Amino acid sequence: MTARRDAPCAIGVDFGTASARAVVVETATGRQRGAAVADYAHGVIDKRLPGSAEPLGADWALQHPGDYLTAMEAAVGRAIAAADVAPSAIVGLGVDFTACTILPVDAGGTPLCLQAEYAARPHAWVKLWKHHAALPQADRINRVAAERGEPALADYGGRTSSEWLVAKALQVLEEDPGVFDAAAAFVEAGDWVVWQLTGTLVRNACAAGYKGFWTRGRGFPSGGFYSALHPRLTGLSEKLAGPVVPPGRCAGTLRPEMARRLGLTDRTAVGAAIIDAHSAVPAAGVVTPGRMVLVMGTSTCHMLLADRHAPVEGIAGVVWDGIVEGRYGYEAGQPAVGDLFGWWARQVGGEAAAADLFDALEHEAAAAPPGGNGLVALDWWNGNRSVLGDADLTGLIVGLTLATTRGEIYRSLIEATGYGTRRILDAFSAHAIPVGELLAVGGLAERSPLLLQVYADITLRPIRFAAADACALGAAMLGAVAAGAEAGGHHSIVEAAAAMARPAGRLVEPDAAAAAAYDDLYREYLELHDHFGRGGSGMMGRLRRLRRAAS
Amino acid sequence: MTARRDAPCAIGVDFGTASARAVVVETATGRQRGAAVADYAHGVIDKRLPGSAEPLGADWALQHPGDYLTAMEAAVGRAIAAADVAPSAIVGLGVDFTACTILPVDAGGTPLCLQAEYAARPHAWVKLWKHHAALPQADRINRVAAERGEPALADYGGRTSSEWLVAKALQVLEEDPGVFDAAAAFVEAGDWVVWQLTGTLVRNACAAGYKGFWTRGRGFPSGGFYSALHPRLTGLSEKLAGPVVPPGRCAGTLRPEMARRLGLTDRTAVGAAIIDAHSAVPAAGVVTPGRMVLVMGTSTCHMLLADRHAPVEGIAGVVWDGIVEGRYGYEAGQPAVGDLFGWWARQVGGEAAAADLFDALEHEAAAAPPGGNGLVALDWWNGNRSVLGDADLTGLIVGLTLATTRGEIYRSLIEATGYGTRRILDAFSAHAIPVGELLAVGGLAERSPLLLQVYADITLRPIRFAAADACALGAAMLGAVAAGAEAGGHHSIVEAAAAMARPAGRLVEPDAAAAAAYDDLYREYLELHDHFGRGGSGMMGRLRRLRRAAS
Repeated sequence: MTARRDAPCAIGVDFGTASARAVVVETATGRQRGAAVADYAHGVIDKRLPGSAEPLGADWALQHPGDYLTAMEAAVGRAIAAADVAPSAIVGLGVDFTACTILPVDAGGTPLCLQAEYAARPHAWVKLWKHHAALPQADRINRVAAERGEPALADYGGRTSSEWLVAKALQVLEEDPGVFDAAAAFVEAGDWVVWQLTGTLVRNACAAGYKGFWTRGRGFPSGGFYSALHPRLTGLSEKLAGPVVPPGRCAGTLRPEMARRLGLTDRTAVGAAIIDAHSAVPAAGVVTPGRMVLVMGTSTCHMLLADRHAPVEGIAGVVWDGIVEGRYGYEAGQPAVGDLFGWWARQVGGEAAAADLFDALEHEAAAAPPGGNGLVALDWWNGNRSVLGDADLTGLIVGLTLATTRGEIYRSLIEATGYGTRRILDAFSAHAIPVGELLAVGGLAERSPLLLQVYADITLRPIRFAAADACALGAAMLGAVAAGAEAGGHHSIVEAAAAMARPAGRLVEPDAAAAAAYDDLYREYLELHDHFGRGGSGMMGRLRRLRRAAS
Repeated sequence: MTARRDAPCAIGVDFGTASARAVVVETATGRQRGAAVADYAHGVIDKRLPGSAEPLGADWALQHPGDYLTAMEAAVGRAIAAADVAPSAIVGLGVDFTACTILPVDAGGTPLCLQAEYAARPHAWVKLWKHHAALPQADRINRVAAERGEPALADYGGRTSSEWLVAKALQVLEEDPGVFDAAAAFVEAGDWVVWQLTGTLVRNACAAGYKGFWTRGRGFPSGGFYSALHPRLTGLSEKLAGPVVPPGRCAGTLRPEMARRLGLTDRTAVGAAIIDAHSAVPAAGVVTPGRMVLVMGTSTCHMLLADRHAPVEGIAGVVWDGIVEGRYGYEAGQPAVGDLFGWWARQVGGEAAAADLFDALEHEAAAAPPGGNGLVALDWWNGNRSVLGDADLTGLIVGLTLATTRGEIYRSLIEATGYGTRRILDAFSAHAIPVGELLAVGGLAERSPLLLQVYADITLRPIRFAAADACALGAAMLGAVAAGAEAGGHHSIVEAAAAMARPAGRLVEPDAAAAAAYDDLYREYLELHDHFGRGGSGMMGRLRRLRRAAS
């Protein structure tokens, strides 16, 4: 099949932590015509501001907003060149972005950090998702929310983290009130890019909902909650003004200047942004209820669409329009998955643990059948962020003997994350929200056939590897929806997914004998889960406190 | 100080698993004048009998009794040569031996395996201590003993292992009754060597007590217990005939033929034997109550003298005259100590884990203060053989995070064995049997200053490194006692210890701050200990059974 230069295409731009990746995809077929990556010139700014000798505090992580535009320009230009597509054939552009990655801007959208008056002030810069210096603020928000029974946090398990919007904004107010006052708006970086592209500020419901407590109907939290945190935080409400729309809703077309920089026409439609992980959901073809997407990387994000709102225990969030317009998007999470396997590889292989070590561990792990390692682990190396919602929980392994091998421990860690996933599925089942099939996205799922089989056997569900890297495709689908069917795009995300989603990989079915063995082992996991997680023993928290006291 | 050729000396011969080690020691000073080691020609026979193609079963471990005499002759000869001592100055000889290492012999003491009729029959050979093929017999003994409330096992926690005498003898009876019938006696190899040296059979109370259920007054078990195990096992009673005496009691002087082979005179007195680990107790200078000796190797053996008999929970045995004449000798044990540290070194360094890896792990482990690793482990990688007496218990680590390092885990394993030791000390305290100071024997204790400090801090007791290799010295002390004071030896083991025991190493005192931190952590250990060990959760046993079912 020859590739036509005039085949309607959409561009997706995936803004990651270190770089932007652009893909050019045919809207009718999902065929990828070109792709390119460009690094951010300043990367993650965690030592000192550009041109400054002043060190930043611990746990700070900033970025330079100009890098986003420069990297996008480079990546899009090269992707188009590789695609051999006429600029006029590119009907839409979508954006996915890490979140909550926010910046303070003036009324025109110019970042404060790019203004001479504020350039030397760290709080004027983009706070990257992994800026963790707002931990004291997050702790206080959780305390105040619990005292107030704050309804704004009800859809988020009653808790926030230092990565989320209000904690970050509160840190600005407390540590540099001049920047807080000078900011006409705080904007998610994904929305800021769309604003730069179109000249219009629309906030995406995905980031607003999952990271900013925005809820359809009620909007962002009330001033009462803000004022309970800080008398002047009520000012945040006006700094979050602007329409909140579902991802992919058309924000406008490219401003001529941006069209020129990107080598596109000013007829290209731009969709409202989406969070990067959530972008994998439509990319995996999931635009209706019933199938769960596991975005597997250092951590795993579990995403599911549903028509009902239910207080599912331990979900990270439930947001109407948050992933797909007209559906509730549920998100749950396990904070250590690939990181956990990497931790073990580092223990046995040192810091320079190589890819072939993972192959060797996987090979050794596959040697024994379920139950054959005699081990059960709790997968809480980075706390529990699902049904228990307790960051002080820690990892545990039981069943160790002198004959236990590194491969057996590796398998027990894979199994532990599988049990954790089943526990999350059980939380949905408890509210009669059905999950039939699992779709795994991410390099981890691609690399490990054992992992897919273990997950199928433990969760008693078929699982399918969907894609190693789906985010940019999901963004392109949003661009296609923004363009609309009449322009060569699609009427809706459902149509876009039907045409553009990746052909899914082989379906891995549960093995009956293995599933029976894992059923027994899952009961052991649950016993440990409830004993250490629900107050049978508060040991894990006590050990954390002893550790802090010792250091 | 010049060494006199006529300084009265004693020889100690330490019969290990692979070799015999002889030392020549001055009885007045404990000064070691010479030492030599000789390997057993046949080593451990675990594949096939000498001259046979027939494979032995799994878990078999035999030895050739001729090797003991040959290796002793070589080692003693070289040790005397190195000592530059006149043979007439060597007043006594003592023997320590692994146990239970037994062999069937005829009425004259000739091993059945050295007789043509029986040479091809595996059960005619020496069963080494680590011959584990009598596991079914041991299981049955434990079941029958529990049903009968068998008093013979009361001093041994009500349990035996496949390594002990009755299990091994029962295996002979069941699998080769002809050998059982032909054996005039079953003899511990240490007693057999003494028999060969002196022409007299005396059984040492140490091996008889700790491995054969012998108790002062009652002797070996009653025929009723034997007949409950097998109708013909009652025949064992006469096969265990002969006086049972404390270690070091004079068994006689060297037979002329043996004196000639060893290059000694026939006036040299020979003491009754002792088990190798127990030999370290007098060698460390412990001949009275109040100080505990930890013999630390792959496992740890805890030994303590006392004047009272008490049903201390989980002791491996309590035997009057068992270590020192006129005292109760208590023994407890942890079955994975050096083995546990080696297990972790293998995980992180592979099979060829080198000595400098241990140094590196120890260095990293020492970096953080008590509590700083946030970890607590249960040291049950090889089951629990102390207060819980349950071989199906397994290892556990809690408190793991993505930041946990290999050095932190290493330290947590050292700490776990320290908590296990404190739990054993608590069992003695519960019966008002005091333990003031700890003395550590073994290469493990010599290599690891961290281990000594951690043990002091956890157990709240001063600990002293006594010797890396004390067994042969303890045997030499028994030789000196056998010779008696009038011949240049000693009246008693108390006098021998005063003169000959090693100058002890530096006393490591508990650090108050560390001890306070460990007090908190020990409570966490106890919570895990009782939860997983006393029925709060039967998970460890269930996982073992699932593992067996899977393989």
